[in-house]
Amino acid sequence: MTIKAVVFDAYGTLYDIQSVAAVTEAAFPGYGEIVTQIWRIKQLEYTWLRSLMGRYEDFSVITRDSLAYTLGVLGLQHDSGALERIMEKYLHLDLYPDAAAALAAMRGRKLAILSNGSTGMLTTLVRNSGLDRVLDATISIDSKKIFKPSPEAYSLIETRLGVPPAEVLFVSSNPWDACGAKAFGLNVAWIERVTPEAMALACVKNDAVAPLTMFKAIRTQMDELGLEPDYRIGALAELPKLVAQHP
Amino acid sequence: MTIKAVVFDAYGTLYDIQSVAAVTEAAFPGYGEIVTQIWRIKQLEYTWLRSLMGRYEDFSVITRDSLAYTLGVLGLQHDSGALERIMEKYLHLDLYPDAAAALAAMRGRKLAILSNGSTGMLTTLVRNSGLDRVLDATISIDSKKIFKPSPEAYSLIETRLGVPPAEVLFVSSNPWDACGAKAFGLNVAWIERVTPEAMALACVKNDAVAPLTMFKAIRTQMDELGLEPDYRIGALAELPKLVAQHP
Repeated sequence: MTIKAVVFDAYGTLYDIQSVAAVTEAAFPGYGEIVTQIWRIKQLEYTWLRSLMGRYEDFSVITRDSLAYTLGVLGLQHDSGALERIMEKYLHLDLYPDAAAALAAMRGRKLAILSNGSTGMLTTLVRNSGLDRVLDATISIDSKKIFKPSPEAYSLIETRLGVPPAEVLFVSSNPWDACGAKAFGLNVAWIERVTPEAMALACVKNDAVAPLTMFKAIRTQMDELGLEPDYRIGALAELPKLVAQHP
Repeated sequence: MTIKAVVFDAYGTLYDIQSVAAVTEAAFPGYGEIVTQIWRIKQLEYTWLRSLMGRYEDFSVITRDSLAYTLGVLGLQHDSGALERIMEKYLHLDLYPDAAAALAAMRGRKLAILSNGSTGMLTTLVRNSGLDRVLDATISIDSKKIFKPSPEAYSLIETRLGVPPAEVLFVSSNPWDACGAKAFGLNVAWIERVTPEAMALACVKNDAVAPLTMFKAIRTQMDELGLEPDYRIGALAELPKLVAQHP
């Protein structure tokens, strides 16, 4: 196999969306973690539901709607200013600490992002984090008006980079995204950020459990969708070595 | 508006899927509630993800896969017998207490189920609960190989009953399903089974919270998808009076 392009999911893969929790905690003291978890569940659900219903709205609308839902269901009073301050964090997400070095080490290949984010959100985020200097392309699914894991979304990689699926390594920490990319025919490296050992610590019974940890875990463990990633890695830092084996 | 047919979602609307919790609790003491909640989240996710990926498998496969995922993520050892005993419950779900009387009171209209369930699962469930005596049709989406809320799924109502969307009242307690039906053009009654007042009791801070209650709640509160049901009711028992207003 030849790898001509390495293409990354953005949210949760290059950028740590859990870094939103600090902002939600500041806005709603005591609720930061539960807001973050419910918000993420609903944000994903809304991308899939709107795609299936044929009622696409871009990711900034969905992100705002799912946050409004979350605050509503938790009964948290808020003004539009608070909502906008939290939303603003999506334009300033923290990169994972090993992201910049890993990308720099693979500069011989085409490097890109393929994300559910809107072009506006992604462009700002990439510039704010300095990744515009190493990426060849930042691809939003918004030209297709359907979200991942639709095959139409992944087809944009070949359209934009001119590299066929068999020569692309797609990298995601999101299990559903890794499965979608695999179903489409891309080579896939899945980043398993929560180890089974760490998981075991979260698994105590109903009453004693840390259910918030568990609901975070179900976003990070490989799904049962009849598909397997080609590679399982623990961090972005492992990528340059993996890619070097496929010149 | 004339209502010629009243069509029901099955799981969570006519049948109480929370009644599965007793069986999972018996199989895995202390874990019944968390197994039930994670299982349901993943079961729904897998219907949407497989639909979007174009990798349809029927609902019995998805229900088994999502249960296997749930037990795996919780680190619960099990033999295939335990898994099958829990699955078996899906063929013997409890009807909501007011379901049979509500259906009997509307016998002048065409009455049907439209469900994500496979034909095999639904036929057995409907017979086991005695609803085969009052329903004109039990419609599975499996002939379309795509799940609700795809418009293709809802189109089966007209195909099978010969009643156009404008003369159908679709009834669901699932917010995403109510939205999908509305997007398709059906008249929709959404059953709001958890009241805002009951919700408020579940809303305490991160540490003290009943997060399992909260994660149940996010399946029962109306979603922010830009769509509104035509009617909000609190129980199936309210339907006959509503329907009687539209001869």
